[in-house]
Amino acid sequence: MELYEAIRTRASVRKYRPDPIPEDVRERVLEAMRLAPSAGNKQPWRFILVEDADLRPQVAQACNGQAWMADAAVIVVACGREADAYGGMGGYWNSLDVDVAIALDHLTLAAAAEGLGTCWIGSFKEAEVRKLLGIPDDVKVVALTPLGYPAVAPEQAPRKPRKPLAEIISHDRWER
Amino acid sequence: MELYEAIRTRASVRKYRPDPIPEDVRERVLEAMRLAPSAGNKQPWRFILVEDADLRPQVAQACNGQAWMADAAVIVVACGREADAYGGMGGYWNSLDVDVAIALDHLTLAAAAEGLGTCWIGSFKEAEVRKLLGIPDDVKVVALTPLGYPAVAPEQAPRKPRKPLAEIISHDRWER
Repeated sequence: MELYEAIRTRASVRKYRPDPIPEDVRERVLEAMRLAPSAGNKQPWRFILVEDADLRPQVAQACNGQAWMADAAVIVVACGREADAYGGMGGYWNSLDVDVAIALDHLTLAAAAEGLGTCWIGSFKEAEVRKLLGIPDDVKVVALTPLGYPAVAPEQAPRKPRKPLAEIISHDRWER
Repeated sequence: MELYEAIRTRASVRKYRPDPIPEDVRERVLEAMRLAPSAGNKQPWRFILVEDADLRPQVAQACNGQAWMADAAVIVVACGREADAYGGMGGYWNSLDVDVAIALDHLTLAAAAEGLGTCWIGSFKEAEVRKLLGIPDDVKVVALTPLGYPAVAPEQAPRKPRKPLAEIISHDRWER
């Protein structure tokens, strides 16, 4: 799929069919994620693909009860160690969140190109996700997303409005 | 350009021709960024397009002397207010960095599709960038990127190796 079409097609999909993802599709989507850039090319990320039928509802429950997530074939848990990332962003902060976000954005766009749905999940209880999946304490869970076939055609998925460019762009200096 | 080709084409471009960016190209690239998702659709981002010939070298200097950045037609300064973002990521942290990273990732892929180069810049002195561009103290500068025509053909740009999937993917539970 054309890049701009993938960007326009991507939506937050909250209703899934449980159909499995063919191996070749899965490989392309993961490869898109693997190729993402990261600060200092440190690639501090780890991705847990939760496919177990008993675990998926438990992970969804740890996402503050977003039970619908469990219907997707896979729940991707994106995480990593700050110790493995670049500590000098802006001179003082850690790149882990940015690095993982870039990789997961690649995955969401590749998913859209393959007719798969995703939905960025930031509302979750980190301690519960860690406990369920045996994630060590020094690993931060940055975000999750279901990955699976949408129950509704992408063109029918609700889309939220975006601010106009005039509101988010300044020229040469801060303008508002 | 096809999504996967854009992902493979994107590289960290550190040498630019100063050629201006045609208006239609610029609009498509900014539109790709505008359409990015964000936690709660809050779109807490602001992007300053630095094109002024006197300012660009100063911004490059604030990026710890990465003078080559100034050769690109535009330097994009991606920033935003934590107060405008979602505060409940994982139960306890702010989404601003993730939101801005998603939008900037869209921009880097659109740029690649248009034959433009970018380079994620995390090494910068936030206070200096703020002062140069009049950015308020409550606005965080998340990252910058030059945006312009590469001096080297994309296929000749150096590419850094990535970890194999086996090293970054776990199944159902944390595996390493």
